[in-house]
Amino acid sequence: VSEERPMVIPMSLGMIDHTLYVHGAKAGRLIKQNKEGAPVCVTATHVDGIVATRSAFHHSMNYRSAVIHGTARLVTDPQEHYDALKSIVEHLLPGRWDEVRDMNRKERAATGVLAIDIEYASAKSRQAPPGEDAQDYALPFWGGIIPVTTALGAPVDDNKLLDGVKVPASIGQARKKFA
Amino acid sequence: VSEERPMVIPMSLGMIDHTLYVHGAKAGRLIKQNKEGAPVCVTATHVDGIVATRSAFHHSMNYRSAVIHGTARLVTDPQEHYDALKSIVEHLLPGRWDEVRDMNRKERAATGVLAIDIEYASAKSRQAPPGEDAQDYALPFWGGIIPVTTALGAPVDDNKLLDGVKVPASIGQARKKFA
Repeated sequence: VSEERPMVIPMSLGMIDHTLYVHGAKAGRLIKQNKEGAPVCVTATHVDGIVATRSAFHHSMNYRSAVIHGTARLVTDPQEHYDALKSIVEHLLPGRWDEVRDMNRKERAATGVLAIDIEYASAKSRQAPPGEDAQDYALPFWGGIIPVTTALGAPVDDNKLLDGVKVPASIGQARKKFA
Repeated sequence: VSEERPMVIPMSLGMIDHTLYVHGAKAGRLIKQNKEGAPVCVTATHVDGIVATRSAFHHSMNYRSAVIHGTARLVTDPQEHYDALKSIVEHLLPGRWDEVRDMNRKERAATGVLAIDIEYASAKSRQAPPGEDAQDYALPFWGGIIPVTTALGAPVDDNKLLDGVKVPASIGQARKKFA
């Protein structure tokens, strides 16, 4: 919340136990405005399908979502700061952290991390066929689910690889998971 | 914002000109708490790729996002209310509105609609290869993009179709668009 208005910003995040971590430039607004213990909400949604019904009214989506409330806390402990940044990269691509150059002191110093201990959370999930009014099944219209799938495509390197560098294990594993 | 805390809720939405529409049960919290002109923020994000870099620090995502600010207004005009509900169904599946049973009076009466005239909006897009520090290209690590794709699968009917009912045009067109 900034000047009494909600501000919803797309973010990557990490999680260790029941604490979420988000990061940004240390001098940036996200960090500055929330570091003094601001109430925050973190919401993630994954759409699994479009629910098409015989009536306009009952159209819906199959999805999974989590809405998490907590209070932002600026991470000052060097170990927690390091672990938090690792958790963000590992959330993006599990196993990646150990395949790349570690963060150096300058990079860590430029990066602010907010911890959000989960105080309240709710999960919602709809995984179901259409819910129609009983009489609507007599209509000559189509009802069902159109699956929405998310997948990882073939990795595209940046044409600057050294000779012999292969696609790393982390990417292969992630692609299997989302094949 | 509810009791000074941000509340971020996954929603479907519709759009007509520069006005967004969201809907909910007329007696529900979303409608009740925002109908008197609350400041709201609507954010949509589409992830296009994982940016894997030779350094932990430069990992990122390719994405497109919009952050929109406005003020909620309860829709009371019957025509705007109807058009708004249509825009929400059409946003989910273009062309669907004319394939199904229209909303009846009871359904419309139970549904609250908030209009959000766009007052301020920002769009962000990252569609680029990894951005590495110059010296990191000498490292024997992989750098590139793992595309994230979203697609619509083959529709699954609910086993309650009347004889001869086929998959409607709206679904075929949406699948082509996201093939």
